[in-house]
Amino acid sequence: MRVLGIDPGTRHLGWGVVERVGTRLVHIAHGVIDTDTDYGLAARLVEIDDGLEKVIGEYKPTIGAVESLFFAKDAQSAAKLGHARGVVLLRLTRAGLILHEYSPALVKRTVVGRGAAEKKQVALVVTALLRLGSPPKSDAADALAIAVTHLQAAGYHAAVHAAGGPKIRGTT
Amino acid sequence: MRVLGIDPGTRHLGWGVVERVGTRLVHIAHGVIDTDTDYGLAARLVEIDDGLEKVIGEYKPTIGAVESLFFAKDAQSAAKLGHARGVVLLRLTRAGLILHEYSPALVKRTVVGRGAAEKKQVALVVTALLRLGSPPKSDAADALAIAVTHLQAAGYHAAVHAAGGPKIRGTT
Repeated sequence: MRVLGIDPGTRHLGWGVVERVGTRLVHIAHGVIDTDTDYGLAARLVEIDDGLEKVIGEYKPTIGAVESLFFAKDAQSAAKLGHARGVVLLRLTRAGLILHEYSPALVKRTVVGRGAAEKKQVALVVTALLRLGSPPKSDAADALAIAVTHLQAAGYHAAVHAAGGPKIRGTT
Repeated sequence: MRVLGIDPGTRHLGWGVVERVGTRLVHIAHGVIDTDTDYGLAARLVEIDDGLEKVIGEYKPTIGAVESLFFAKDAQSAAKLGHARGVVLLRLTRAGLILHEYSPALVKRTVVGRGAAEKKQVALVVTALLRLGSPPKSDAADALAIAVTHLQAAGYHAAVHAAGGPKIRGTT
């Protein structure tokens, strides 16, 4: 199972691809799509869409894990984030990925063990978990953390399912 | 000049195509893309994108006029609207349309003469202005009003420009 994690944003969109091989989490790639702020929002959404298409074409993930809407922000930030997130959901769905969403607090709880963990700590844990040479940029680290969260949740779900329990899925 | 006006929304997306022929405003078509709320947001964004592609392919507008972000709403509404608006900006830009944005208050002021006009009144004025047989649905009426706003603003700008004044453009 190869998962593309996405931390959406109109200026910096973090992405990370992680695969599970047996019980091991294997880092495939990560990066940040930095859009050109000299351009308007529409042109930057095209940059994001082009960037995602390239990442999906190159690494061929089958699952998308996206940070869920975070409603504590003000309306203006929420609207801008919504634009980027809309393009992400559209592109991933068009590319045939199955989407799952995870809240920032769940991602932190899964990866670090505390829902209120700092971003820096998330990056350090992801670096250690995936045996990276150096910590990725903050947005890419968050994206990798979301992918890891899906793989750990999926492992748990698979175990529950194998045990005859209910199959729990993320919602989109 | 053929303008596609858009009133974005994730459930009901209004669209309207208006052309200026000489000094006359000519109604070409209008409608609402109603998405299936049985599906998740990602699937509905694909419906919106497919619908817009069809409208653009059929009516071949060269200008897009979109309601600008309206920040008075709460963060949750703003984020949802942002998703739809992100897909609109992406699709219109990919299709080569030149984008302009107008605030709801400016649209009402241009069409009805008062920035605080009711939606119903906007629909009645649009119906009369464009000589429609009956008032369109609210979302389509708003989209037609946005297209009309662009055509009236563009007429003003062209006159200012012809008079040697500054050329004023909408921003995206």
